[in-house]
Amino acid sequence: KVVETYRRRMEETKLLGKEERADFDALFPVLVDDLTGSKELQDMPETNRWMRKVLEYNVPFGKQNRGLSLALAYRYLAKDLSRDNIQLSYVLGWCVEFLQAFFLVADDIMDSSETRRGRLCWYKVDGLGATAFNDAVLLEASVYPILKKYFREKEYYADLLDIFHEATFKTSYGQSLDTRTGLEKRLETYTVDRYAAIVKYKTSYYSFYLPVSLAMAMAGVRDNKTKEQARTLLLEMGHFFQVQDDYLDCFGDTDITGKIGTDIADCKCSWLVVAALQKANPAQRHIIMENYGQNDPEKIEIIKHLYMDMGIPELYLDFEEQTYSTINKHIEQMSPSLPKRLFRDMIDKLYRRSS
Amino acid sequence: KVVETYRRRMEETKLLGKEERADFDALFPVLVDDLTGSKELQDMPETNRWMRKVLEYNVPFGKQNRGLSLALAYRYLAKDLSRDNIQLSYVLGWCVEFLQAFFLVADDIMDSSETRRGRLCWYKVDGLGATAFNDAVLLEASVYPILKKYFREKEYYADLLDIFHEATFKTSYGQSLDTRTGLEKRLETYTVDRYAAIVKYKTSYYSFYLPVSLAMAMAGVRDNKTKEQARTLLLEMGHFFQVQDDYLDCFGDTDITGKIGTDIADCKCSWLVVAALQKANPAQRHIIMENYGQNDPEKIEIIKHLYMDMGIPELYLDFEEQTYSTINKHIEQMSPSLPKRLFRDMIDKLYRRSS
Ligand SMILES: [Mg+2]
Ligand SMILES: [Mg+2]
Ligand SMILES: [Mg+2]
Ligand SMILES: [Mg+2]
Ligand SMILES: [Mg+2]
Ligand SMILES: [Mg+2]
Repeated sequence: KVVETYRRRMEETKLLGKEERADFDALFPVLVDDLTGSKELQDMPETNRWMRKVLEYNVPFGKQNRGLSLALAYRYLAKDLSRDNIQLSYVLGWCVEFLQAFFLVADDIMDSSETRRGRLCWYKVDGLGATAFNDAVLLEASVYPILKKYFREKEYYADLLDIFHEATFKTSYGQSLDTRTGLEKRLETYTVDRYAAIVKYKTSYYSFYLPVSLAMAMAGVRDNKTKEQARTLLLEMGHFFQVQDDYLDCFGDTDITGKIGTDIADCKCSWLVVAALQKANPAQRHIIMENYGQNDPEKIEIIKHLYMDMGIPELYLDFEEQTYSTINKHIEQMSPSLPKRLFRDMIDKLYRRSS
Repeated sequence: KVVETYRRRMEETKLLGKEERADFDALFPVLVDDLTGSKELQDMPETNRWMRKVLEYNVPFGKQNRGLSLALAYRYLAKDLSRDNIQLSYVLGWCVEFLQAFFLVADDIMDSSETRRGRLCWYKVDGLGATAFNDAVLLEASVYPILKKYFREKEYYADLLDIFHEATFKTSYGQSLDTRTGLEKRLETYTVDRYAAIVKYKTSYYSFYLPVSLAMAMAGVRDNKTKEQARTLLLEMGHFFQVQDDYLDCFGDTDITGKIGTDIADCKCSWLVVAALQKANPAQRHIIMENYGQNDPEKIEIIKHLYMDMGIPELYLDFEEQTYSTINKHIEQMSPSLPKRLFRDMIDKLYRRSS
């Protein structure tokens, strides 16, 4: 039933219209067949079946914000909006969803998470454990045969590859800083700057910049100033999104987010602990030092209560309002060469989100 | 001192001349600087330092057969052998070594290995554990900024990317079948065909086909028949190499191989167990069923003794002689458009190897 609640909410809050989403969804099984049904892989029937299982468990049940925002961006950016190109934008959207699935499967192992999208994390299924890493690699590797099949003859093919590679590199850089920070547990390094660097790399690039810059490449947007402006705004949105993610990790409803939080236990440099450390008095700082970053339910509760005593949830609500209004201001100030509605749609999708 | 013995042997058995190897080696620190010193990553100083550590621990201390065979192949294949292109072939060779490091770091986690190249496996260093998976991803991601920097303007740039992607996809397919087979532990599936499929995908593509096909792309070899012939032979060599690897996993000298075997404990579909199952009488089959695939030193010893009682090491020596001679015959039968010396150099490097 958790799965049901979670999936119903997902349906209600998606980008793009219902029909377009049906077309988008209809492509997923086609891509799975492309990946697992090729003549060349006929000598690997067991692995084709396994690959299908990995794809079907891990790719389709998210919010699909990344894939859909790519499709939306393409609609707003393209000059020649042919049926074929719309389909291609969906293919590219699914490639972003494959990449996202790769990051999530790996991230859940490294963060020792329990659930994702209302179900067990993949590595927890049938005791896969560390062997699930290779399944993450399969998900990442799935991006490229699809790109090759559908885009090899396009003049922007190499641009798409470069964009995917750059996003993957930056995300793994961000994951590294996130993980190293959590392992080293030196709370004096949990500053606003450290937080911004982690988030920019681990989240914003691939979640916001990647889909829109792929759509720009497809639509033939070449102007560097335009791309730079979009990039700045999208990274700002990514920061907003991650602050929300950090809030929901601690204070979200698990039935709605589909995942059980792990940030406190993992000693993560979360927005909440950075905010708390900034305004803590010596006694409060002591409580954080003694209880943060340990996988002990009592200590986790102590931290949650401290956050509430310190008014961190209220601070978060303030942050959300202010940042939403700042980002909207920045959207209005953008060059007319960029489709403001795209960015408005994207930020409105995030504002006050609970999943 | 294990490290010393191991490294000295590595020096003695490398492909390419000493001077060329010095040039090849000299490029590694340049590439590390490229990866960690870019202006764009200046806001990630800790992660740049970490990346350097990951690269320096995991990339340079192997046999470098893959990187060097690429450079050697380019020498034999290229029409215009300029100093610049030779350097580029070294860059490409290091990219293959980065990819190899990615596979090894991840493989060691999934196989629960202890040592690699005479030292602790990376995930065993400082208790990194599963978080080392992100370091594997960093190693893989390192390939692409290097390719972009040195090859973006070449007309064969997209070909290089396609070749890397295909090898990565196939290797993860092979790793999947290897891992799934070991987890399911159904010894009736440990057939010669299953073995061949695992090896083709997990080893032969990236270790043999990848370096030579990259060199062919650089050298402008476009003829499909020629490429197909090379591919068939290189996959044959890969099979030969993996049979040796399986033999050494059990009967090799750890000081020379640099790694402690795990195949019996991991219930791997190794050449040795496939050979033993093929010729086992009911009593011997029973011993295998009872003792294979358990992380228990006594049971592992029982299997090793059974192999010896059954004459599996002698069978291996036979196989090595026969396959060496078959492969040499195939080399002689190749089209004159392919440089036979390249393949002879490669197979001679493998023949009777102990590391
Ligand atoms: Mg996580
Ligand atoms: Mg994480
Ligand atoms: Mg989170
Ligand atoms: Mg291994
Ligand atoms: Mg292995
Ligand atoms: Mg082995």
